[in-house]
Amino acid sequence: MTASAVGRRGRRPGRPDTRAAILAAARGRFASAGFGGTTIRAIAADAGVDAALVHHYFGSKDDLFVAALELPVDPRAVMAERVIGTSGGNAEGAGERLLRAFLSVWDDPEVQPGLLAIVRRVMEPGGDKLISEGFLPVVLVPLGEALGIDHPEQRMPLVASQVIGLILVRYLVRLEPVASWDHERLVTAYAPTLQRYFTGPLPA
Amino acid sequence: MTASAVGRRGRRPGRPDTRAAILAAARGRFASAGFGGTTIRAIAADAGVDAALVHHYFGSKDDLFVAALELPVDPRAVMAERVIGTSGGNAEGAGERLLRAFLSVWDDPEVQPGLLAIVRRVMEPGGDKLISEGFLPVVLVPLGEALGIDHPEQRMPLVASQVIGLILVRYLVRLEPVASWDHERLVTAYAPTLQRYFTGPLPA
Repeated sequence: MTASAVGRRGRRPGRPDTRAAILAAARGRFASAGFGGTTIRAIAADAGVDAALVHHYFGSKDDLFVAALELPVDPRAVMAERVIGTSGGNAEGAGERLLRAFLSVWDDPEVQPGLLAIVRRVMEPGGDKLISEGFLPVVLVPLGEALGIDHPEQRMPLVASQVIGLILVRYLVRLEPVASWDHERLVTAYAPTLQRYFTGPLPA
Repeated sequence: MTASAVGRRGRRPGRPDTRAAILAAARGRFASAGFGGTTIRAIAADAGVDAALVHHYFGSKDDLFVAALELPVDPRAVMAERVIGTSGGNAEGAGERLLRAFLSVWDDPEVQPGLLAIVRRVMEPGGDKLISEGFLPVVLVPLGEALGIDHPEQRMPLVASQVIGLILVRYLVRLEPVASWDHERLVTAYAPTLQRYFTGPLPA
């Protein structure tokens, strides 16, 4: 749906196609300008609505980014519940907690197809921004900050590199034995790697 | 080029299009039947040549698989020279040697585009076999065996998962700081992970 087509439908707040128009405009902006280069104001203009309406429907720019991805689950909620927890900011054991949270979401057969669609989108031309200007600032760096680790902007890309590699090997390439291992085996194999990226030595 | 079109061109050995016909037939078979399900005999039949001619031109089925990928470098030669080495079969330090060999190939600007094309092919539907039925049995498991590690069929997929994740983060997604780190920094970050997969504890 183009911005002008959306505009022609008028500015009636509350109509279901207003939400859809905002989401379409958000997807277009995030894809072309990246997360950092996109403003709520620009999305609102593209959708032909007031910026206040965008905030009213979707909350912050972070929230709108997650909504535009149409993820089957909000990764920030999963992180808050299962990785950060109520104690708040304990990096000890974070590798194992992240891995278990990640596996419980990815191994849900109702959720997995939607996640795989996102991964395939990342691989398409221009899809790289989805991670570098989306997931990293919206989900991963805030997770590192909440866990109280030093240099989250360096450590979280390392964490991401092993999580992405595991996604590809287990869910896309379905390489055995990793594709069939249960969660305990995967924790034995991968949790120490993630923990080292969270809290181990960093390059000078 | 279809098998019948190839057949019509006759069975003249030594003609450049005979080589091309064999490679096209090999690509078709490997893509549809996987490495394990493909025979030299079937490729020869598709190309309208004798199986002996396929062996004459390309050597073993492993060699033909690597040739069909049109890789800018033969990964087996790189492994033999830089990871296995002349001492033969020493797993100590293999994580760092593999990482340095991998980086020297991938960071060569003349080689990188060809490698990225292969990675994108892996992501396409059916491309998963390229790793599970190609790279793993042809390159990775033989590397593990040459290094003398136990359970190479379990360890090499773990190694692959971090190498693939690094490829995606550094070369496709170009996530900073990993995309810009020099080899020493990458060795500090990743060599211990690879070494643990080569020689550390395995899931029970």
